[in-house]
Amino acid sequence: MLLLTPGPVSTRPGVKAAMTRDIAPWDADFAPLFRGVADYALAVAGVDRSTHACLPLQGAGHFAIEAMLRAFLGRAGQPGAGKLLMALTGAYGVRMARLAREMGCAVTTLPVSDTAPVPPAAIAAALAADPTLTHVGLVYSETSTGIVHDARAIGQVVRAAGRTMLLDAVSAYGALPLDLAAMPEVAATVFTANKCFEGMPGIAFVVARTNALEATLPAGSWSLDLGDIWRMQRTRSDGFFRFTPPAQVMAAMAAAQADHAAEGGAAARLARYGANRDALMGGLEAIGLSPYLSRAAQGPIVVNVQAPGDDAWDLHRFVVGLKARDFLISNFHDTVEPSFRVGCIGAIEPDDMRRFTEAVDATLGAMDIRDRSPARLPARAA
Amino acid sequence: MLLLTPGPVSTRPGVKAAMTRDIAPWDADFAPLFRGVADYALAVAGVDRSTHACLPLQGAGHFAIEAMLRAFLGRAGQPGAGKLLMALTGAYGVRMARLAREMGCAVTTLPVSDTAPVPPAAIAAALAADPTLTHVGLVYSETSTGIVHDARAIGQVVRAAGRTMLLDAVSAYGALPLDLAAMPEVAATVFTANKCFEGMPGIAFVVARTNALEATLPAGSWSLDLGDIWRMQRTRSDGFFRFTPPAQVMAAMAAAQADHAAEGGAAARLARYGANRDALMGGLEAIGLSPYLSRAAQGPIVVNVQAPGDDAWDLHRFVVGLKARDFLISNFHDTVEPSFRVGCIGAIEPDDMRRFTEAVDATLGAMDIRDRSPARLPARAA
Repeated sequence: MLLLTPGPVSTRPGVKAAMTRDIAPWDADFAPLFRGVADYALAVAGVDRSTHACLPLQGAGHFAIEAMLRAFLGRAGQPGAGKLLMALTGAYGVRMARLAREMGCAVTTLPVSDTAPVPPAAIAAALAADPTLTHVGLVYSETSTGIVHDARAIGQVVRAAGRTMLLDAVSAYGALPLDLAAMPEVAATVFTANKCFEGMPGIAFVVARTNALEATLPAGSWSLDLGDIWRMQRTRSDGFFRFTPPAQVMAAMAAAQADHAAEGGAAARLARYGANRDALMGGLEAIGLSPYLSRAAQGPIVVNVQAPGDDAWDLHRFVVGLKARDFLISNFHDTVEPSFRVGCIGAIEPDDMRRFTEAVDATLGAMDIRDRSPARLPARAA
Repeated sequence: MLLLTPGPVSTRPGVKAAMTRDIAPWDADFAPLFRGVADYALAVAGVDRSTHACLPLQGAGHFAIEAMLRAFLGRAGQPGAGKLLMALTGAYGVRMARLAREMGCAVTTLPVSDTAPVPPAAIAAALAADPTLTHVGLVYSETSTGIVHDARAIGQVVRAAGRTMLLDAVSAYGALPLDLAAMPEVAATVFTANKCFEGMPGIAFVVARTNALEATLPAGSWSLDLGDIWRMQRTRSDGFFRFTPPAQVMAAMAAAQADHAAEGGAAARLARYGANRDALMGGLEAIGLSPYLSRAAQGPIVVNVQAPGDDAWDLHRFVVGLKARDFLISNFHDTVEPSFRVGCIGAIEPDDMRRFTEAVDATLGAMDIRDRSPARLPARAA
């Protein structure tokens, strides 16, 4: 069974094997592994401990995003708190806005297209229109749409406007280009173990500038207090965690990073994901299906495919049919128009995508779907 | 290598094996496993879905305690918020008070002995003295001291006073007696996978009354919003998670619960832990060491042992020496006087404790420790 989902992903045997040890998290033979994971993650983004810290947080990526917002944006009415401009790039942009609102932050949302990258000029215009905006939130790779936004260009706009950027890099980090040394406007960015690092779910990370960490706002939550995690990491060199960590998931992350390095790092991983995407899109188009996005807008992480217009289309039956053929894809869609989505990340190769295309063809045939062209729906909201 | 720690614990092979699959958390073959885990946990506490819900939360037990406080106690100034009486039973009592304070709750702490269970009369007196107290926080089994507090008797006092109890049962649930059907004063209780259920770390749970869940306070944190988790569980029967769960840790928990049931449930587990404790304490006393607590106060989860008074004592060297003999114990102590601590929980038997006692004897000998009687320190603070 191969997972073709945008995280959790298919993992390598060594990653799974790392999950099978009993571990005392503070054990002297084990704690350095935590530091190694953090140091490797910093190097992937072109930085090191002299300017940045990589802080682990138990749980889902959303927790780390909330911790980042608590530390650097702050809640309305709190001394030093700011106001967030959040680009609504898709489900994850909407979620970051919701995380901010529910904790009490001031947020202005910026609706954007779900079929094209955010134009940096739109961010510049929004910042110019509201001088009270202090931070810009961006999802680098929108898992819901599959669009990779130009974090570098948008960052330049943010910097030029004298504002600060908070970056959700969850499905980007470890594959898409990211040079934090050249992006001083980025106070912090978030990633998880189970996306492009191809580890297991259960741990998230915030990479933040140490000078920003020296001036975090009171979090109003000990559980999600990034400043507290930083103070512990700064004063203890042994990789000690606040609270019990998912130690096996961390061990799997170390194994996954070793594979990442052996493959050639982020550039090699991006090349493989791109080849996966190309094999997938070429294969699906050859059997009459239509991608959701134009080639220009389509990122290498996840591909949405327009649901066939045939009345026999049923996403649930389609997913069950693919599963019977040993492929697991998401059983929901996050797009405006009906679609199915296929992850290009994880321990998979272009040949897997070619086998998958055959499985899609066979499943559609078994479902008696004759019209594979996109459903004709009312015009999408702009 | 055997972990003799009060969580993470030594686990069985089937628990480890459950960690080695790639899992799509929403997969129809997998999501029911989540519901099974929750239903079994309810049954362990003598309740079911008709009155209670078991809500999973990614991450550490502390996160679930904070989520419980946000849902049921609330933050000072928030409409409907209460005031917490927190018994400072040890490190975990202190931590629950800190979690409450940092999120902005009104908290009154009650200092108590660290060598004897909290007297229910002390709780009754504190509640009588301050009518504005609405909730009582208690750590059922204090992992730092090893004391099991009388949650049932304290609960009766809380109920008689018309107040509500919030129970940290992290190192109790699944072994110590807990009949939530007979404790209507308990709005919610927290446990994790990696203590008496003998699963892996990375997931926590809140068991709460459904009528209390229908009236949760605004959490001020989407990540830690128990009411939101409840609304999702209530409206979806498929065990769906908010945000990506540590799916492998959940699979391990299901395997661990199957072992729990096969062993004979909580009563059988408590009997084994008690036998572990007795074998441990008898063995250590026979080689001249002194337990920290009286037999009457000593619970079956973790045993603190007084550090030998000999000048050659060094906890770090002791831990390293035991590790060379294939036993891993905590490399820190949480007691007022110096001690070392040994967990009695996990996939271990009394025979393991006898082998451990031999390893302790050999290690102390190799460290040239002759005086094994407790260090004579200044009298402890009352």
